[in-house]
Amino acid sequence: MDKESEILERLRGMRAGDPKFEDGKILSSVSTKPLGIAIEAFKIFADTNALDTHIFSKVEELEKECIGWIGNLLHNRLARGYITTGGTEANIFALWVMRENSKKRQIIVPRSAHYSVERAANLLGLEIIPAALDENFKADAGDIERNINENTLGIVLTAGTSALGAVDPVEDVSDLISNSGEKIFLHVDAAFGGFIIPFLKPGIRFDFELENVTSITIDPHKMGMAPIPSGAVLLKNDSLLDKITISPPYLPFKTNTLSGTRSGGAIAATYATLNYIGVDGYEKIVGGCMENTKLLCSELSKLDCVEKAAEPELNIVGIMVSGSDNSEIVKKLGKRGWKVSLNEKPKCIRVVVMPHTSRENILCFIDDLRECTG
Amino acid sequence: MDKESEILERLRGMRAGDPKFEDGKILSSVSTKPLGIAIEAFKIFADTNALDTHIFSKVEELEKECIGWIGNLLHNRLARGYITTGGTEANIFALWVMRENSKKRQIIVPRSAHYSVERAANLLGLEIIPAALDENFKADAGDIERNINENTLGIVLTAGTSALGAVDPVEDVSDLISNSGEKIFLHVDAAFGGFIIPFLKPGIRFDFELENVTSITIDPHKMGMAPIPSGAVLLKNDSLLDKITISPPYLPFKTNTLSGTRSGGAIAATYATLNYIGVDGYEKIVGGCMENTKLLCSELSKLDCVEKAAEPELNIVGIMVSGSDNSEIVKKLGKRGWKVSLNEKPKCIRVVVMPHTSRENILCFIDDLRECTG
Repeated sequence: MDKESEILERLRGMRAGDPKFEDGKILSSVSTKPLGIAIEAFKIFADTNALDTHIFSKVEELEKECIGWIGNLLHNRLARGYITTGGTEANIFALWVMRENSKKRQIIVPRSAHYSVERAANLLGLEIIPAALDENFKADAGDIERNINENTLGIVLTAGTSALGAVDPVEDVSDLISNSGEKIFLHVDAAFGGFIIPFLKPGIRFDFELENVTSITIDPHKMGMAPIPSGAVLLKNDSLLDKITISPPYLPFKTNTLSGTRSGGAIAATYATLNYIGVDGYEKIVGGCMENTKLLCSELSKLDCVEKAAEPELNIVGIMVSGSDNSEIVKKLGKRGWKVSLNEKPKCIRVVVMPHTSRENILCFIDDLRECTG
Repeated sequence: MDKESEILERLRGMRAGDPKFEDGKILSSVSTKPLGIAIEAFKIFADTNALDTHIFSKVEELEKECIGWIGNLLHNRLARGYITTGGTEANIFALWVMRENSKKRQIIVPRSAHYSVERAANLLGLEIIPAALDENFKADAGDIERNINENTLGIVLTAGTSALGAVDPVEDVSDLISNSGEKIFLHVDAAFGGFIIPFLKPGIRFDFELENVTSITIDPHKMGMAPIPSGAVLLKNDSLLDKITISPPYLPFKTNTLSGTRSGGAIAATYATLNYIGVDGYEKIVGGCMENTKLLCSELSKLDCVEKAAEPELNIVGIMVSGSDNSEIVKKLGKRGWKVSLNEKPKCIRVVVMPHTSRENILCFIDDLRECTG
């Protein structure tokens, strides 16, 4: 066997040794199997660098179209931003932009925020003022209001928390900001929920249609079904970018992204995914995931000693098994091939119902859960 | 035509409209055309997330092998690190690790450092103490020595500057640190030079074989020929990671990378590239680039009104045309299809001789340069 075949053979063998999305048993991932067309698109642009706009002008064009598509989805055709490597880069970027446009250094962050927000605050030297959650594990707007003061740089809300898919009350908080009379940035981390909430009926207001939302993280590589790496960050307008724009002293352009070299292939893959699926397609995909989530909930209600941590708004369900050590149940489920994880707060088994999970998978999972808790 | 064909058709048309590495006229990029095997490897692992080690254990294995391979190349089998999205993430990470392991806040940075170092310092609230360059545009070790004091957190050197491929005197600075008696981190940004210098004969000492080097940035997606995104950061030992290690409260593992979700495809592509090319292959590739660089230099010496900014140690040449506006010459060359860029400091035309540039390309470039400067 030649060297090329040998290496690829080994890689295929290794990949075969790990779980596959197609089997429907991965219930702890917020990513899913990307489309063939996206991989093909990646290949076409695999040798391009989105940083080098003077060479690869078409990548810049594709990226603008992606950001336009997403901006449109988020009720702001004029939003500016870029395709990041994921939600963490997007959150760091958004907080960095806030910091560079203000002298204040406190951010109010509900306790359910993604860990990348704490990481970003640590990097950037921002002080986190934690805000409480309500009984549904959403940010408590009243507690946020009490914490707003003249040092408040911004507020970070989540539209689809990592633990439970909870959607913070963005509209209430946007109103609070108007009433406060302070200039406060409002960042919405919709890494997970950004490709779900716009397709729900009835919808939830969480994006740029709300007056005070200044930036949004939204990951095409989560419910947008694009291949990793594909995150996105959008700013309300491009004037916020002035403070972070620089001209590399050896290249003929300005840049304002956090990363330098960026994959043109990932941008092409995102473009292909957005345009191939389209708004109608996402409506169907989200509809299917929500239907399966409802099925999961109704089946759970038939089981003894099982409760939901909260009524899910999106496609994540927290399962609390009373009278048992939940981590033991996760292990037992793991032995049956189910990939589920354990939430710390609240203590529960976390199940994400992604597009790769079918109705049959849910019913099969319920059977196994019944046996593991019985 | 169906939707899929339509989208891919458009993407192929767009890609065809921009320059291609195969044409040999891209002289301003530090990336190159990735190998077919790397794209194939990306495909095999395209649906995997390196963050989710509890699902994709094989990606973790591949990444450890990549870091082991690179650590070996850099004289430290025990080095720990990860595959980043590029040099910027690697530099931010390295400075972040420094900061979290010390109370000092000053870093000494020669004026030729990559702009991402300034960006990282800005993010992290570190104070940059600039250090002068010598006549060859390398860091002046004497000036660094004068700037070392009890507030010095670290020193950032470059092994292959973006402008001219200059290699800072890492060995001298490592010795300085020993003599200073201070605990000072030494980060080497070898994003560009890391896949060149180890294959040069005679070599230049720049890596972990030098006692005080604590971290290294090295980009497989530059001279390592891996597809974008593929950077890497290596730390001398894993105890430096303790301060930044966290446990996501909804996932069953610890993590210490700057990014959260990370492309398993990119890791597999890096693995395939490193193993397919191998040390012997890189020796040949680097040898070819250096030979073409010498050819370029000797042909330049035959041209009137043309001088080199410095004697190149790596495969980047700065061309100074006297009696002409260099930016006009870049424009004229651009009209003939050459992608070259202009350095600010020193003012010169920057030519990177990558593996996609052949002997014939060099001769053809010289002909065009002669006509454009004549």
